[in-house]
Amino acid sequence: MATLKQVAAHAEVSVQTVSNALNAPHRLRADTLERVNRSIELLNYRPNRNARSLRTSAVELIGYCVPSWPNHTHLVMDQFLHALCAAAERTGRHILLFTAPGGVDGMPTYDDLHARRMVDGFVLSQTETHDPRHGWLKEQDIPFVSFGRVWKQTTQPGPWVDVDGAAGSAMAVRHLHESGRRRIAFLGWPKLSGLGEDRLGGWRDACKDLGLPTTGLTVRCREDSIEEGARATARMLDTGRTVDGIVALSDILALGALRELTRRGLTPGHDVGVTGFDDSPLAEVVSPGLTSLRQPMDQIAEELITILTGTVNGSPVERLLRPELVIRGSSAPG
Amino acid sequence: MATLKQVAAHAEVSVQTVSNALNAPHRLRADTLERVNRSIELLNYRPNRNARSLRTSAVELIGYCVPSWPNHTHLVMDQFLHALCAAAERTGRHILLFTAPGGVDGMPTYDDLHARRMVDGFVLSQTETHDPRHGWLKEQDIPFVSFGRVWKQTTQPGPWVDVDGAAGSAMAVRHLHESGRRRIAFLGWPKLSGLGEDRLGGWRDACKDLGLPTTGLTVRCREDSIEEGARATARMLDTGRTVDGIVALSDILALGALRELTRRGLTPGHDVGVTGFDDSPLAEVVSPGLTSLRQPMDQIAEELITILTGTVNGSPVERLLRPELVIRGSSAPG
Repeated sequence: MATLKQVAAHAEVSVQTVSNALNAPHRLRADTLERVNRSIELLNYRPNRNARSLRTSAVELIGYCVPSWPNHTHLVMDQFLHALCAAAERTGRHILLFTAPGGVDGMPTYDDLHARRMVDGFVLSQTETHDPRHGWLKEQDIPFVSFGRVWKQTTQPGPWVDVDGAAGSAMAVRHLHESGRRRIAFLGWPKLSGLGEDRLGGWRDACKDLGLPTTGLTVRCREDSIEEGARATARMLDTGRTVDGIVALSDILALGALRELTRRGLTPGHDVGVTGFDDSPLAEVVSPGLTSLRQPMDQIAEELITILTGTVNGSPVERLLRPELVIRGSSAPG
Repeated sequence: MATLKQVAAHAEVSVQTVSNALNAPHRLRADTLERVNRSIELLNYRPNRNARSLRTSAVELIGYCVPSWPNHTHLVMDQFLHALCAAAERTGRHILLFTAPGGVDGMPTYDDLHARRMVDGFVLSQTETHDPRHGWLKEQDIPFVSFGRVWKQTTQPGPWVDVDGAAGSAMAVRHLHESGRRRIAFLGWPKLSGLGEDRLGGWRDACKDLGLPTTGLTVRCREDSIEEGARATARMLDTGRTVDGIVALSDILALGALRELTRRGLTPGHDVGVTGFDDSPLAEVVSPGLTSLRQPMDQIAEELITILTGTVNGSPVERLLRPELVIRGSSAPG
């Protein structure tokens, strides 16, 4: 397999000239072009499509702050990063990873990366309530797009792509209802989580639509851990209320619910249907498998890159995508 | 919070001049330097240490091919990427992510990224048996370092950092032995996996050292899945052989073992001690928790970056690091 360098050496030209022969042949003298093309043919050089598309535009890098760990909410990060990287490459761009402190303390890092032209824009994720990054980047006129809305804010400071959590909860409720469940509880997060309130709202609305009870069927967990999920489930069941379905705000909380149900001799999927959120690798490895809402990662990545690299006029672009319910044993008909 | 740009605007100089004032003050005329420093003080500009260190060297980017998904072996990828990114930044460098086809088909991507000076070198991971990338990069004189050895090769084509799988298996065997286990089985992969053979060898040697039996106590799984781990455990127990410990080659296989033991009414941790490899997020979420061998990610990343960016003379650098045994309920004293 020939390389760009070998072609250049064979034709006795620079790498840039070979690149021009491939992408901007009009820039070369006819005899040079012919010489390079002959070398390409003789050495059987196969140009890489990704790289070729890159050469036609200015090199553009997109900054992405890699989340710190350990943090369970990043269980689908590898999926997101691969999708983001592939989407960027389809436009001839690449992802530059960096680390930064959280909140406002991280802003000098964003600022410097942009001021020094290391990156041309940012994809934000792990958006927090009152996240300061979006407003700050907008103020600095630095291009960005957010995977996730800035919660508890009346207007969004910039373009975003998000997954419709309320619609997801509603899908889970309707699925459990179709399999015969009539008392469906919700395991949530503290009130300060905008994402949590969004998903909670979807559960409540769907229950009301279907004429299902909601009173006394919500438990707020203090943190996103298996232990809290189990404790919340225990608290719910200890009240003596009948529960035949549980919509959990995350896979982690759902796993806690499965654990507590099993501990009490109840069979998840048979006695109580359980659903989670995110379709993380955890959902597949527990037994029974966990029914969960999958985020459409490829589409999310595609939209993020399109928005960031497009010429957007007027009001910020907003894309709310629907998750997909992946059904497994934890919600089998009771 | 002031930005580099605002300081530059205030002092009526370019961003590069502010950068010079911070990092190479001797390059500036005394009056310019004074003016910039006054603006820095007035605007209370806090330079970002990461970015400052960057400015002192040529911009250098390190390429890392993001693995495709879904693939369970990437469960600790977020940890690796964060550690790698942080280690690179401590030297003023950044990680550029890219995607590439596997094997030799991916080489044009590596070649072009380097020829076009998008990256100055590569960190390889997900190394495969007879991986063609290493030899090819060495031949092209492109700097690289590998996380993981190229198995089934007598000499390594370049520098590498790896975790000592044989030592890890031996640690697991000794741990199970100390808690009273005397018939410790090994759940492995097919023979063609060099990594698998390495870990198998560590189990065999440790058993021999301790005078423990090994005959008939190995099962090779066809793939790295929970189902295969469960099937292999069933096959082992169906022979009627007594087994009171299981060292599994991966967390996934170990989870399969836990599942099959539970299905048969055996209590993992009580009746049979089980250990996995990698200390993935799965290890913490199962019940009982899975004892597993953790890879020292921060140290791995530090070594990779040091090797790649250092001026290494003579023979390739090789670093074999020891994993750490994280003990949980699955190997509690029986």
